[in-house]
Amino acid sequence: MKVSIAGASGYAGGELLRLLLGHPDVEVQQVTAESSAGRFVHSVHPNLRGATGLKFVPMDDLEPCDLLFLGLPHGMAMERIDDVARLAPRLIDLSADFRLRDAAAYPRWYEHEHPHPEWLAKFVYGIPELHREEIRATSYATGAGCNATVTILGLKPLFERGLVERAVIEVKVGSSEGGNSPSLASHHPERSGSVRSFAPTGHRHQAEMQQELAFHGQPEIHFSATAIELVRGILLTAHCFLKERVQERDLWGIYREAYGNEPFIRLVRDRRGVYRYPEPKILAGSNFCDIGFEVDPDSNRVVIIAAIDNLMKGAAGNAVQAMNVMCGFDERAGLGFTGLHPI
Amino acid sequence: MKVSIAGASGYAGGELLRLLLGHPDVEVQQVTAESSAGRFVHSVHPNLRGATGLKFVPMDDLEPCDLLFLGLPHGMAMERIDDVARLAPRLIDLSADFRLRDAAAYPRWYEHEHPHPEWLAKFVYGIPELHREEIRATSYATGAGCNATVTILGLKPLFERGLVERAVIEVKVGSSEGGNSPSLASHHPERSGSVRSFAPTGHRHQAEMQQELAFHGQPEIHFSATAIELVRGILLTAHCFLKERVQERDLWGIYREAYGNEPFIRLVRDRRGVYRYPEPKILAGSNFCDIGFEVDPDSNRVVIIAAIDNLMKGAAGNAVQAMNVMCGFDERAGLGFTGLHPI
Amino acid sequence: MKVSIAGASGYAGGELLRLLLGHPDVEVQQVTAESSAGRFVHSVHPNLRGATGLKFVPMDDLEPCDLLFLGLPHGMAMERIDDVARLAPRLIDLSADFRLRDAAAYPRWYEHEHPHPEWLAKFVYGIPELHREEIRATSYATGAGCNATVTILGLKPLFERGLVERAVIEVKVGSSEGGNSPSLASHHPERSGSVRSFAPTGHRHQAEMQQELAFHGQPEIHFSATAIELVRGILLTAHCFLKERVQERDLWGIYREAYGNEPFIRLVRDRRGVYRYPEPKILAGSNFCDIGFEVDPDSNRVVIIAAIDNLMKGAAGNAVQAMNVMCGFDERAGLGFTGLHPI
Amino acid sequence: MKVSIAGASGYAGGELLRLLLGHPDVEVQQVTAESSAGRFVHSVHPNLRGATGLKFVPMDDLEPCDLLFLGLPHGMAMERIDDVARLAPRLIDLSADFRLRDAAAYPRWYEHEHPHPEWLAKFVYGIPELHREEIRATSYATGAGCNATVTILGLKPLFERGLVERAVIEVKVGSSEGGNSPSLASHHPERSGSVRSFAPTGHRHQAEMQQELAFHGQPEIHFSATAIELVRGILLTAHCFLKERVQERDLWGIYREAYGNEPFIRLVRDRRGVYRYPEPKILAGSNFCDIGFEVDPDSNRVVIIAAIDNLMKGAAGNAVQAMNVMCGFDERAGLGFTGLHPI
Repeated sequence: MKVSIAGASGYAGGELLRLLLGHPDVEVQQVTAESSAGRFVHSVHPNLRGATGLKFVPMDDLEPCDLLFLGLPHGMAMERIDDVARLAPRLIDLSADFRLRDAAAYPRWYEHEHPHPEWLAKFVYGIPELHREEIRATSYATGAGCNATVTILGLKPLFERGLVERAVIEVKVGSSEGGNSPSLASHHPERSGSVRSFAPTGHRHQAEMQQELAFHGQPEIHFSATAIELVRGILLTAHCFLKERVQERDLWGIYREAYGNEPFIRLVRDRRGVYRYPEPKILAGSNFCDIGFEVDPDSNRVVIIAAIDNLMKGAAGNAVQAMNVMCGFDERAGLGFTGLHPI
Repeated sequence: MKVSIAGASGYAGGELLRLLLGHPDVEVQQVTAESSAGRFVHSVHPNLRGATGLKFVPMDDLEPCDLLFLGLPHGMAMERIDDVARLAPRLIDLSADFRLRDAAAYPRWYEHEHPHPEWLAKFVYGIPELHREEIRATSYATGAGCNATVTILGLKPLFERGLVERAVIEVKVGSSEGGNSPSLASHHPERSGSVRSFAPTGHRHQAEMQQELAFHGQPEIHFSATAIELVRGILLTAHCFLKERVQERDLWGIYREAYGNEPFIRLVRDRRGVYRYPEPKILAGSNFCDIGFEVDPDSNRVVIIAAIDNLMKGAAGNAVQAMNVMCGFDERAGLGFTGLHPI
Repeated sequence: MKVSIAGASGYAGGELLRLLLGHPDVEVQQVTAESSAGRFVHSVHPNLRGATGLKFVPMDDLEPCDLLFLGLPHGMAMERIDDVARLAPRLIDLSADFRLRDAAAYPRWYEHEHPHPEWLAKFVYGIPELHREEIRATSYATGAGCNATVTILGLKPLFERGLVERAVIEVKVGSSEGGNSPSLASHHPERSGSVRSFAPTGHRHQAEMQQELAFHGQPEIHFSATAIELVRGILLTAHCFLKERVQERDLWGIYREAYGNEPFIRLVRDRRGVYRYPEPKILAGSNFCDIGFEVDPDSNRVVIIAAIDNLMKGAAGNAVQAMNVMCGFDERAGLGFTGLHPI
Repeated sequence: MKVSIAGASGYAGGELLRLLLGHPDVEVQQVTAESSAGRFVHSVHPNLRGATGLKFVPMDDLEPCDLLFLGLPHGMAMERIDDVARLAPRLIDLSADFRLRDAAAYPRWYEHEHPHPEWLAKFVYGIPELHREEIRATSYATGAGCNATVTILGLKPLFERGLVERAVIEVKVGSSEGGNSPSLASHHPERSGSVRSFAPTGHRHQAEMQQELAFHGQPEIHFSATAIELVRGILLTAHCFLKERVQERDLWGIYREAYGNEPFIRLVRDRRGVYRYPEPKILAGSNFCDIGFEVDPDSNRVVIIAAIDNLMKGAAGNAVQAMNVMCGFDERAGLGFTGLHPI
């Protein structure tokens, strides 16, 4: 199967290219980047030196292929969707352009109308753990926000059962989440060692959380994000106030039932050792979402802890997993890397 | 005034020594450390090379002085308090041994009875922003837990006015908080780059928060701590659900009234720039507690963000500030360092 | 083919296990660790959670296998070599116990006699780029020191041709090189952010460099190592003073001829971009040795820059590569990971 | 004494402002910055929040003062020197514009002619350890390159005595050395964790080293610089090949004689402990240059290890020290900070 990537010079696009070059069932036909057109991909993604002889081409040179990944800046895919859709029978979009089912959510969270709301219903929210059967049946899948992915995966089993009264969610994130454009905030002397509250309220990914956790009406969720010294990775700490108290063994049961057969979810709750709860650093390069929890014995609070690599399960890895589901490949194909230790 | 430090080989003890060596009103007479007895202090605290010719002495060699700081391991000062108190008319303790007013709290939070509960009432909880007048009048002050300090200072104005229904508190902390004893968890390849949930529930510092924020009955607070890649510093992110909604200008008023004249509290809430909220890294070595906030326009939630250097305002710096108050010195004496940028 | 690892709880042993679990031609039969015997491997190597159900066994429980890797502490394999060799027809040792051809070098560099010097001649110094044909023909290969590996690979083309008068070698290394035993020097608050000269002279790996670069008599090399803020990786900066001046295009020719067909060596020398020279961070988890250079136009100095992941090409990755050569597998088998960017 | 800073929005300028605000003998009159004119200094230097009410003014608004510091971009001071010199009887320049005594060195190292070579002879190369008496007698001092400072201070005692045949110099530097302008190379995901050879040959600071170490003819020095994970700080590792072998006690004698009375140089060479050699991290914010050494028992090589904070002894701290000498203040005034541990 021939695949191409429109927008492959960003961090998620580069990660996607890395995965697709090692995927047993696909061949990468073209990768686009406007400003780097004509240059070898390793000039932008130095880890790929020697792995491919591909050069970036401009978007206008894209030829038809079997499946097209879209890694374009937010807002671009929604503008060009009609043209883009003519290039390939299958699309997987990594941007936020088709994530929200409700067109009215775009002006609220993204400050502009959606130019092609008729396309919103065609796209499946592409996290296989949430919508595997729909992905299998669709030709159009959208990726998910990285913070939304870890939050939704971490909390879904509780919300699905209607257990949660209120959730207070903190994510700690690495610098790669902000993309590859330099700014004073990302300048190393300023960003290094920082613990920076960048979205105490109002983060856009809440729109996706609201949408995907609405099993029993609108979920009450409160979200904050803090940037820390880290390049890749997100740690979720979610304080869930439950309608009734639960025991830790009940939580084990709930999460095992929800995720026991999932290839990319691991439950992590050890009694001893250094890595008793999920940690993002050992997930760098892997597609796992690790989930753990602890029950507060003094209240109805449960703390859910979850970790992903924002560029993998939070972006490119999940996109490949979605492709695998959509195309009937082994869901794990191309995603076998386990992560490193120490790192 | 002659001061000594019992227990000066730890991180807080070393920081205290650094501050006292530069303090205009005191002279450091002796510093103790059992295993390093006989060695120059710079063999343990390399930054003090050339700053002093002091050597560590064993605790048994302590001579009388005007004020004795206690930087002993938790549990030791409470055992020896009668002996120790004979050495100096004034004591400032950095451990948890005299922080809690209620003797019954020790078995609950520290898993043992307090051997000298009669001493608990003699000690003032030594954060000047909370108990300045009592510190001025006492001869015995206790330091505060670093996580408790940033939490209490960040939330006091709201709890004092009875505005808070429930607070969900997340702190992100550096590795120096764990002290100077190596372990696998603190081994650099394991600890570096980690985002490690180490106390999702049940952190001991909650006892102090409960005690000091009980302005209108028992506060409902839920606390979690996560270790991140950082040596010095704590960032507090506290989600306060208020009994009624407030505007941001009201918050400004509340915090200005509470802290407008405090020498070591700065309110930080800028509209632009990289450092719009408090950040611990620019506080390394300084005694400031920076506090900021953001109102969630969609709910009754207010997010309080606060930062300290855990070894300064969270330990040694606060102890010197308490000494300054207790002894009638300029409250800022020896604490003039502003912090560095970039760092 | 059934392989086992004696000594699999260290960092190199864990990395080896990770690689072997993903290797298409082998099955991991047993892994040993004394203190962790009976526990799942993921209790020590958290990245392997879910990747295997193996538990550590004590060394005494080792059963015969087709190839045995030795990841034991330095000094242990040389003591037990006769017993160990009865367990498997093929051995690959990661320690320094059989690296040096000259038994007299052990007292000099390792401060003790070698108890079984008769075994030294049986082991091939197992870097395929140096001794591929001998590895193909042997049943006993020894790994190489990580610092020695990057130095020898970086400098071999120049020494082989007899071009070098004197080489001054600086390596910058990460903390995983020191192994997994905690100490004050590796305690995160002490080790974090450090730039620590730990072997300005006298590093043991010089013995291997002397041995392997002696193409035209004893090489004159001067070696220093500095520990920096990094977990995995080594950067070599080698100042080679040549007998005569060369042009950059001559260097290209020399290195292309030496390494043009090597699967794990990449020449890196770009005119623009951020990654113009080798950098270890993009090699984490990969088996590449990246090599670059620059000619000083003002003197006969050439600066060779090379990078590896010390746990991969510097230990476990090279061991797997050696196994592939020894056993006639595809030399790249199990070593396809390209490294990550950003990281 | 009234001082102003022309160009105070950069990292060295901000550090200078921090020091001058705490200096007992001066008052900061004005600080300039074109793009930030009209804004409070803490908008750029967040550590100074509350420390001053100063706002940046444009350069054209500078008023006469007693001493003017120049922190302008390289090349600007040399253009405007005649105008600038009218503003104050004393100038201390932090740029490279007046560092080189030989006008012909500018085209060679800085690729342009010096527009006012007549000024070169008026400026003293302002490192007090090198030119204290000349600084005392002058009204014009220039700062030194940070890499040049640590190199020259580290090697001066050996070159002064004519002991060195050849020196191979490696510096490891932090990201603040590159200034405060963001670029892809300084973008946190790219710069974090890097070990990046950025000047294997040809670094401009060599011009200063050549000039200041020419005690006995042109010194033979070979210089390389590598950027590592660090914000502040430089570590020098200098391999000096001596004309004859020396003993370690001789080196002690030489360095003690050279620097025994220097207030900001500390000799560091401990037999045990973690900090046996100089380390830059414990120097952050301090004006010390720590120097250590090790003799290679197998050759005529001596390894000199030295560390500074590039923004302090490498820039602003040294400038204040020079001012203190020039103006007859206590040489230590305003420079009492010892550095932090741990950090």
